[in-house]
Amino acid sequence: MDSSADCSATTAVVLVSGGMDSCVAAAEAAASGRSLALLHATYGQRTAARERSAFDAIAAHYAVPAARRLVATLEHIGHIGGSALTDMAITMPSGPPDRERIPVTYVPFRNAHLLATAVSWAEVIGAAEVWIGAVEEDSSGYPDCRAVFLEAFERAVREGTRPETAIRIVAPLLHLGKDAIVRRGLELGAPLAATWSCYQASERACGVCESCRLRLRGFARAGARDPIPYENEPAAAGERGR
Amino acid sequence: MDSSADCSATTAVVLVSGGMDSCVAAAEAAASGRSLALLHATYGQRTAARERSAFDAIAAHYAVPAARRLVATLEHIGHIGGSALTDMAITMPSGPPDRERIPVTYVPFRNAHLLATAVSWAEVIGAAEVWIGAVEEDSSGYPDCRAVFLEAFERAVREGTRPETAIRIVAPLLHLGKDAIVRRGLELGAPLAATWSCYQASERACGVCESCRLRLRGFARAGARDPIPYENEPAAAGERGR
Repeated sequence: MDSSADCSATTAVVLVSGGMDSCVAAAEAAASGRSLALLHATYGQRTAARERSAFDAIAAHYAVPAARRLVATLEHIGHIGGSALTDMAITMPSGPPDRERIPVTYVPFRNAHLLATAVSWAEVIGAAEVWIGAVEEDSSGYPDCRAVFLEAFERAVREGTRPETAIRIVAPLLHLGKDAIVRRGLELGAPLAATWSCYQASERACGVCESCRLRLRGFARAGARDPIPYENEPAAAGERGR
Repeated sequence: MDSSADCSATTAVVLVSGGMDSCVAAAEAAASGRSLALLHATYGQRTAARERSAFDAIAAHYAVPAARRLVATLEHIGHIGGSALTDMAITMPSGPPDRERIPVTYVPFRNAHLLATAVSWAEVIGAAEVWIGAVEEDSSGYPDCRAVFLEAFERAVREGTRPETAIRIVAPLLHLGKDAIVRRGLELGAPLAATWSCYQASERACGVCESCRLRLRGFARAGARDPIPYENEPAAAGERGR
């Protein structure tokens, strides 16, 4: 696993959720000259349709051909449940995250499913890299967004694929704060207005879920204005410095 | 990862494909006093319906309640393709396997998807173990059926789940030959007649695909008769000593 990437003309499967981070990861891959293959997954999450339309817009922005776009339906993740993102019976938290505990928005072992899908596709199409917009430092604290997990998973990829297959996992945002991600996205001309991060709303972002809070704080600290619409602009603005 | 298992009353998620090996793995888990949670996956493979009915029969044999049965639809594996099991355009080989190459029946990184599903479910239901009927020695040589892969994946599970989650991967057949698996299944009273191993036929097993060959050879070496129907009994019998 590598948080940097050298510059060569290889094909990169980029996991694109439709959120800001994975959009910036795709922008980094494009900027480094990679040929993009974009992978999106729906898994029964509350905002699946909105995230899918964000994916379509990002793929269009980078002119990725249809044969290099894959939308995977991982509904078993939703059926298994155990997360506020997929189980409507679990209340979505609206306060600041408790840094001492794994939040209820954690989807059990989700990134293993996403990475496995990316790796299978990469092995079939001959892509040498899988890019993921995981953020470890300035994040919700999900265990499967940490370097130790990505390194262990990369080892499993090396052992579990054909001997001639060599797939690197690249996580360019892993050690960045959200403000640095916003700045990098703006520098690279990433289509941030097309992205969607809110965990619960699909028309106007709620502004108060963990994901909205992290995003808004990133824009505030970067001294930039988030181009997407929020339900409650003043309240959301009030959160921006937190 | 452990190829043995101590005896305690824990819940084990057992991956049950409907084939002989995973049926014997379930039998081992049941015999060791585990509380069974059985997981089956369909992924667009040729014999999906037949394997599903084998799963149902195995789950019924062990009286596993509905809440402890999960059938996951992983159709993205089939969409990604790259295997004779999921892509009808790839000819199913009928000769003995070439031990020097990964066979075309290899489904890219399949066990990562199956294990990730088992781990997510295990984390939600509080199961301490995931059992898999992977066979390394007397097998088709799939990279994701080897101890090195399972050990690496177990490490990824440790790093990618909640800190309080501790899930062991148990592969009780990993170092057994097919004959030993047959003998163990018979000793344990595993419902081998309900299982299905053929890669291409669903009424009578073809007897000539890799999976049928390995199975028939196992029964022959164990001095037992395979209870399932074969398309071509004499030809199949002729393969049994190979």
